[in-house]
Amino acid sequence: MKRQREIKAVLFDIDDTLFDSTTLSKMARMNAIKAMIECGLPIRSVQKGHSLLMKIVEKYGSNYDKHFDRLLETLGCCKDPKIIVAGIVAYHDTKLAYIKPNSDVIPTLIALRDKGCKLGIVSNGRSVKQWEKLIRLGLHHFFDVVIVSEDVGSEKPQSKIFRVATEKLEVKPKETIYAGDDPETDVLGANNAGLISVGLIKQKRKWSTLNKDKQPKFTIKTVSELLSILEPT
Amino acid sequence: MKRQREIKAVLFDIDDTLFDSTTLSKMARMNAIKAMIECGLPIRSVQKGHSLLMKIVEKYGSNYDKHFDRLLETLGCCKDPKIIVAGIVAYHDTKLAYIKPNSDVIPTLIALRDKGCKLGIVSNGRSVKQWEKLIRLGLHHFFDVVIVSEDVGSEKPQSKIFRVATEKLEVKPKETIYAGDDPETDVLGANNAGLISVGLIKQKRKWSTLNKDKQPKFTIKTVSELLSILEPT
Repeated sequence: MKRQREIKAVLFDIDDTLFDSTTLSKMARMNAIKAMIECGLPIRSVQKGHSLLMKIVEKYGSNYDKHFDRLLETLGCCKDPKIIVAGIVAYHDTKLAYIKPNSDVIPTLIALRDKGCKLGIVSNGRSVKQWEKLIRLGLHHFFDVVIVSEDVGSEKPQSKIFRVATEKLEVKPKETIYAGDDPETDVLGANNAGLISVGLIKQKRKWSTLNKDKQPKFTIKTVSELLSILEPT
Repeated sequence: MKRQREIKAVLFDIDDTLFDSTTLSKMARMNAIKAMIECGLPIRSVQKGHSLLMKIVEKYGSNYDKHFDRLLETLGCCKDPKIIVAGIVAYHDTKLAYIKPNSDVIPTLIALRDKGCKLGIVSNGRSVKQWEKLIRLGLHHFFDVVIVSEDVGSEKPQSKIFRVATEKLEVKPKETIYAGDDPETDVLGANNAGLISVGLIKQKRKWSTLNKDKQPKFTIKTVSELLSILEPT
């Protein structure tokens, strides 16, 4: 069977690609609300607290560092470090306890390296936060390059951040896969930069209803399916 | 036996009073250096790395957040987030795993409350960091007031921070003990504010060689000895 394409490198998104960031964040926020209630947050329902918190996260972005301060304000409370820090501690403890790679990630990374593929990360966010995830996931030794938007002054879907990665790896974009879950950043960016885009399918996402430039060249349900893209049967 | 003095409240310093902050920081920094070496820090001796790091901590202060960046510079390295964040993660993991109250702290706090004493904290530092310590130590429910310098715009040895605490507790300074380990901040501040100063004796410290205003009214080797100050035999 002839190998259809020469893939020299595989680049990955981190959140919701290498681990289930969405579930983890939800669990961490629910536990934070519980701990804050235990310390005096004047609300009875954890679910209601979580909904209020999510509105704040949407308004200020996920990298804002005063979500819990704003939650207290929303509930008409004075700033109370005991309540706020109880939330922060519970949030981080939950993340630390549960952050794990999706089950097929490590075997897939090993198999890709065995095939001679270079591996890399192209991720939006703060450098310290994204590196912390890789280190806590135990994945930081697998990648030949790790490019985080804060470090290079460009973020997905801009082409530059992808180009920084392929240039460092000394591979051509058309020989490089980019795997991610988000059509707006991962797929659009990889397509614009001339990489081979691979979209991880989440529940309910209808890739087919998206504009063509946000549609991935391949879709997969789990990262191990990358191996069959490299060597189609 | 007549009770010699009426003590209505006992206030505490946190670091090196409620837990062994010095040992914990040293362990955390040693583990950080080990993790950074594993990720490529160009130095062989953990001890040497720790010495270089301590010079940086002394120069920039313990609340500065770029100690590891400066360490890389000192060793002639480029900024490398993998190495820096490996250090940060190891540092925090060590702290999280080992932060525990000194063994007699919880029984002493319970005994003091049983006697009707109000309890409080007067601490220098950043609010989030000091609250995090109390929460991780499991002590945050014991105290009627927690005053952190960042929150009140005054720090030990200034009198104001002690006065904020006694006023919130509605007690007089002369009815209030302040227990801490540092003559320059804890004892001097408590003496100036008219509180009953209690100095925790560390190895090698010669309280008797200090100026009179830095000498505590009582010295103790461990916090449980506070109970015999309250009810002398």
